[in-house]
Amino acid sequence: MTTSITEISGPPRIADPGEGLSFEELALAARNHAMPPEALRYEVTPPGLHYVLNHFDIPLVDADTWRLEVRGAVDKPISVDLETLQEMPRHTVRVTMECAGNGRAHLAPRPVSQPWLNGAVGTADWTGVRLAELLEDVGVGAEAVDVAFSGADHGVERGMEDDYRRGLSVSEATSPDVLVAYEMNGAPLPPQHGFPARLVVPGWYGMAHVKWLRDVEVLASPFDGFQNTVNYRLRTDPDESGTPVTRIEPRALLVPPGFPDFMTRTRVARPGQHALEGRAWSGWGEITRVEVSDDDGATWSDAEVEAASGAHGWQRFTTIWVASPGERRLRVRAHDSSGRSQPDTPVWSRGGFANNADAPIPVFVLEG
Amino acid sequence: MTTSITEISGPPRIADPGEGLSFEELALAARNHAMPPEALRYEVTPPGLHYVLNHFDIPLVDADTWRLEVRGAVDKPISVDLETLQEMPRHTVRVTMECAGNGRAHLAPRPVSQPWLNGAVGTADWTGVRLAELLEDVGVGAEAVDVAFSGADHGVERGMEDDYRRGLSVSEATSPDVLVAYEMNGAPLPPQHGFPARLVVPGWYGMAHVKWLRDVEVLASPFDGFQNTVNYRLRTDPDESGTPVTRIEPRALLVPPGFPDFMTRTRVARPGQHALEGRAWSGWGEITRVEVSDDDGATWSDAEVEAASGAHGWQRFTTIWVASPGERRLRVRAHDSSGRSQPDTPVWSRGGFANNADAPIPVFVLEG
Repeated sequence: MTTSITEISGPPRIADPGEGLSFEELALAARNHAMPPEALRYEVTPPGLHYVLNHFDIPLVDADTWRLEVRGAVDKPISVDLETLQEMPRHTVRVTMECAGNGRAHLAPRPVSQPWLNGAVGTADWTGVRLAELLEDVGVGAEAVDVAFSGADHGVERGMEDDYRRGLSVSEATSPDVLVAYEMNGAPLPPQHGFPARLVVPGWYGMAHVKWLRDVEVLASPFDGFQNTVNYRLRTDPDESGTPVTRIEPRALLVPPGFPDFMTRTRVARPGQHALEGRAWSGWGEITRVEVSDDDGATWSDAEVEAASGAHGWQRFTTIWVASPGERRLRVRAHDSSGRSQPDTPVWSRGGFANNADAPIPVFVLEG
Repeated sequence: MTTSITEISGPPRIADPGEGLSFEELALAARNHAMPPEALRYEVTPPGLHYVLNHFDIPLVDADTWRLEVRGAVDKPISVDLETLQEMPRHTVRVTMECAGNGRAHLAPRPVSQPWLNGAVGTADWTGVRLAELLEDVGVGAEAVDVAFSGADHGVERGMEDDYRRGLSVSEATSPDVLVAYEMNGAPLPPQHGFPARLVVPGWYGMAHVKWLRDVEVLASPFDGFQNTVNYRLRTDPDESGTPVTRIEPRALLVPPGFPDFMTRTRVARPGQHALEGRAWSGWGEITRVEVSDDDGATWSDAEVEAASGAHGWQRFTTIWVASPGERRLRVRAHDSSGRSQPDTPVWSRGGFANNADAPIPVFVLEG
């Protein structure tokens, strides 16, 4: 008999060696969907193909009564409705967004959580108001250190009931491309992407982009909420405080050549020339190089890397692959201008965050 | 060393008792997404929340060069481009669509395939041309028995390389609400829903609604393609031919009350009155009754069932639930005008099709 909330909401767990995916992981995988890799062919991800990760239910928010509070350590707090927000100067940024847990299911041992393979990514044009402008309007106090953002999504996580909340430092929050966005690709936000308004923090993993935003509180002391201080941390031991998950590590992904087997998803391709394409991105800088291998990393060659169409969007890369019959294993890896690149071996953390090791794509090349 | 396509694409498999979900099933679950249950609050499912099940990759189809062939046992075959199709009389139908595999992952033993829980459903307004009108234009021969529909999606399934193809009898195909649709909810079809045109067969499970439609062939002999004669069959023994999967069995689903725990998805609710709502549907007739239980089926009461807003859309139901503290298990079950209803025990088949047994929703009701 369940008598307290902690009995249905326990501490994080690491799967046993060889343990198959649980139904709890499946329930998360069924509602939080990845972008299928063939959608890498689109510069802007079409509606419904952008990845989605929501901790709790999609809340039903009434746009007519919705208000955004901007308050705390400020000179004059404000409460704005959607119409007022939409009358402020509009700003659009193209942003590649990725879940911090992307790649988690490839880790061994596997942290039990949303079991992402590699597809938790997407690119959209977000339109809204610069957060810096809203903060300028209220006048941030000299004592301010952090800004806390609360969404309308509510639930229990690791035994604690709360709204989804995240904090950013004042300097990050006032970065010019941080938006309170009310449009995605020129249309109102879909319910699952934060209708009517959400935070967009270009370059950061998805956990920072608070959806169904309803409250912005300027704090005179560091934000100590669960999602910053407990959940999104890189740690290998449960007792260490760890380091915060912040910006997106570099990653390249291919549009897989050929066609799939329905059940195993193994790729099948004809021999000969294939024009390969893909996209690469990093929250730490520009992508400077993408390498491609068809022999599981024994040899590598450089792909052509195109410029991004904006400061925060992914970059297309292309190369010609001459496929010879047999089993091939395609790999790609990205390097960025900060000197970061994709490791051969995953960097393991208990939360399964920021694993940007590449995952080889097995391709069976036919005889003819 | 793989030397033939059958080595990467084997026969169907049933999971061993206690076998966790495989990575192959996860790869399918990551790309084919369910509708989260809270989206049952919408009469028309918002873009991106409608379920998606694609056997192969989403093909890239150029709308400018796309043509639909209508040919075979006809008087005068035609080949129409998108503009011509869009100039023909427009017809819009609201359709609740469900994957034939919805509920598969609840079966024991579990057929290894796309591991749907209950969310493979959605409702959309589809706009296009009546297939009956296209068939009238070409003049169906007296010898015609079936119509074969081919999509541009291509892959391997159970060792066989093919485009996705399905057949319908001439009488089903000429039913007035069967459409060649080019709009979903008033916008061009998204890539994952069949851009630029797809078949819509109201009342039938999703496998009949061929996406990326490119060829309609009238046949003088029964269609013998894989998806009709091998794949979508109800059978318990691998050697029997089985019966075809056709129309949607009745099902009711609830917007789950309260809020979830992130990891276990267990619902938590406050005690007292909750206005419950959900949707119910059947491909065999109108929903005439929906029953609700909060004690795992020991006792049932009737919900209020609303009329559908069209001939092929789901019906909303509502009831008041008085939640008392402790562990509750909510169940709902639908009955339709054909006399069909939801069984207590799943009807098992090797493909895991048409399992419309209800799945209880555990809710932990707090003390206050």
